[in-house]
Amino acid sequence: MQMKAYIEIVDKKLDEYIPVSYPEDIFKSMRYTVLLPGKRLRPVMCIESARMFGADLEDVLPAACAIEMLHAQTLIHDDLPCMDNDDFRRGKPSNHKVFSEAIAVLAGDALLTFAPQIILKNSKNLGSEKLVRIMEEYFQAAGAYGVIAGQVVDIENERKQSEGERITKDEHSEILHYLHLHKTGDLFRLAIRTGAIIGGADEKALKTLTVFAEKLGIAFQIADDILDEEATFEEIGKTPGKDKIAGKLTYTSLYGINKAKKDLNSLLDECRKILSDNGFKSEIFEEILSKIKKD
Amino acid sequence: MQMKAYIEIVDKKLDEYIPVSYPEDIFKSMRYTVLLPGKRLRPVMCIESARMFGADLEDVLPAACAIEMLHAQTLIHDDLPCMDNDDFRRGKPSNHKVFSEAIAVLAGDALLTFAPQIILKNSKNLGSEKLVRIMEEYFQAAGAYGVIAGQVVDIENERKQSEGERITKDEHSEILHYLHLHKTGDLFRLAIRTGAIIGGADEKALKTLTVFAEKLGIAFQIADDILDEEATFEEIGKTPGKDKIAGKLTYTSLYGINKAKKDLNSLLDECRKILSDNGFKSEIFEEILSKIKKD
Repeated sequence: MQMKAYIEIVDKKLDEYIPVSYPEDIFKSMRYTVLLPGKRLRPVMCIESARMFGADLEDVLPAACAIEMLHAQTLIHDDLPCMDNDDFRRGKPSNHKVFSEAIAVLAGDALLTFAPQIILKNSKNLGSEKLVRIMEEYFQAAGAYGVIAGQVVDIENERKQSEGERITKDEHSEILHYLHLHKTGDLFRLAIRTGAIIGGADEKALKTLTVFAEKLGIAFQIADDILDEEATFEEIGKTPGKDKIAGKLTYTSLYGINKAKKDLNSLLDECRKILSDNGFKSEIFEEILSKIKKD
Repeated sequence: MQMKAYIEIVDKKLDEYIPVSYPEDIFKSMRYTVLLPGKRLRPVMCIESARMFGADLEDVLPAACAIEMLHAQTLIHDDLPCMDNDDFRRGKPSNHKVFSEAIAVLAGDALLTFAPQIILKNSKNLGSEKLVRIMEEYFQAAGAYGVIAGQVVDIENERKQSEGERITKDEHSEILHYLHLHKTGDLFRLAIRTGAIIGGADEKALKTLTVFAEKLGIAFQIADDILDEEATFEEIGKTPGKDKIAGKLTYTSLYGINKAKKDLNSLLDECRKILSDNGFKSEIFEEILSKIKKD
């Protein structure tokens, strides 16, 4: 199946999974960000990972959609005025601009438990043991040891910078790696590992895919940093160069755009090598890897 | 075992369950609100409900503590400036005053997934089927169909009031019932049902306990409204009369303090009747019921 077909199925299911009921505002707010048109990269990776291990599409769709909901949760809360204070997301006003800060906080909260609820409701035939395993993966990625750890370190680094605290390049390098690993890598890992678990992958395959997902996450983030510097509003759907103007720690600000492009290519090559060395045949992952490359 | 002994065990376990690791601020912020001295009503009810059905204390402690963490999550986010904007909680500065709004949002987010993670990590011997069932109960109570629905309706009602929208007494009465049922009742129901599920209660007992928990939740909320009107800062650890001054919809503002006290007594009697009619013998629940009564 082609990437486009995956995306269409995911979009349809996301719409189905979040019906509007009373009190309407919370469901409308959840739907607003979840259904913003997007690349659906995480659900696509989850579905493709499951397919590589022989799972049926029906069995992986709830988890794939749940991970997109979790991703939307992080976007809603990251955009809040007390966080990154972003007025736009994917070219549209961010959630708290359309609804209110209070509803945006609550919609994010709601998605955090709505997402795994969708898995439990719609994946009964996976059996309780697999479901518990998937829940463990979800909590690990969504929580204080996962994406939240990344966001906290991001915020604290910015506070230190704004207070003029001296941070060495080595320290910045470590912080940036941590940010990429958690803010992006954790959801990539969740998507890919969850798909593989649903497909019945063994521990060895899961370990290999964990390394693959982390490298892919870092590559994606470097590409995003390059894009923020080089793209227009129309291309990325948010104010470009904002990170640079804000003096934000990015891969390009730390290492320069040339090294960023070089390292991105190396990481993408390493990802390809992991796929071929382990006999993971996937046109979809090949396509994702080729689309990340921006130079 | 006495209520005091339950509270001590819960406090000790809550402390153990949230070790501080990197990045420290998020764990410190989670610990700050979770470990504020409190009545631990929800964990006590969870433990006692499990005991009534013969469960071992060890088997229910993770779930009991997780529900207290969820309760703390709702307090942290409810106190935020964009929500109820409360500077104090249990006599201490609220979470966002000690840390920052950003960290408070993230600590709440983290607790939402940390809590069920504690259950999965520490309750393996319950078996996967029971764990899935407990997760379902947790998501239902924590999410958009549970406490969050209550908070959304609360916020929207206040917005309507401040905009001078005309709301009839019947409408207010319905809204208030909905608020009490969700903002308080849902976590009481979660605590009591989860304990009973761990103890192996059958469907009939669970249904009876659901009614009991909902009545107890509403009674507790009415008592809280009475207290807000009659108590001092020292007694309740937050600014008293704030709800009244803010023109907030409360049981006392809607029905007057006399009817509030009368209805509270009726509800407590109904709760006692449910216990005795169904052979649920519990000194702890008797004690909770007698402590709620304020007149």
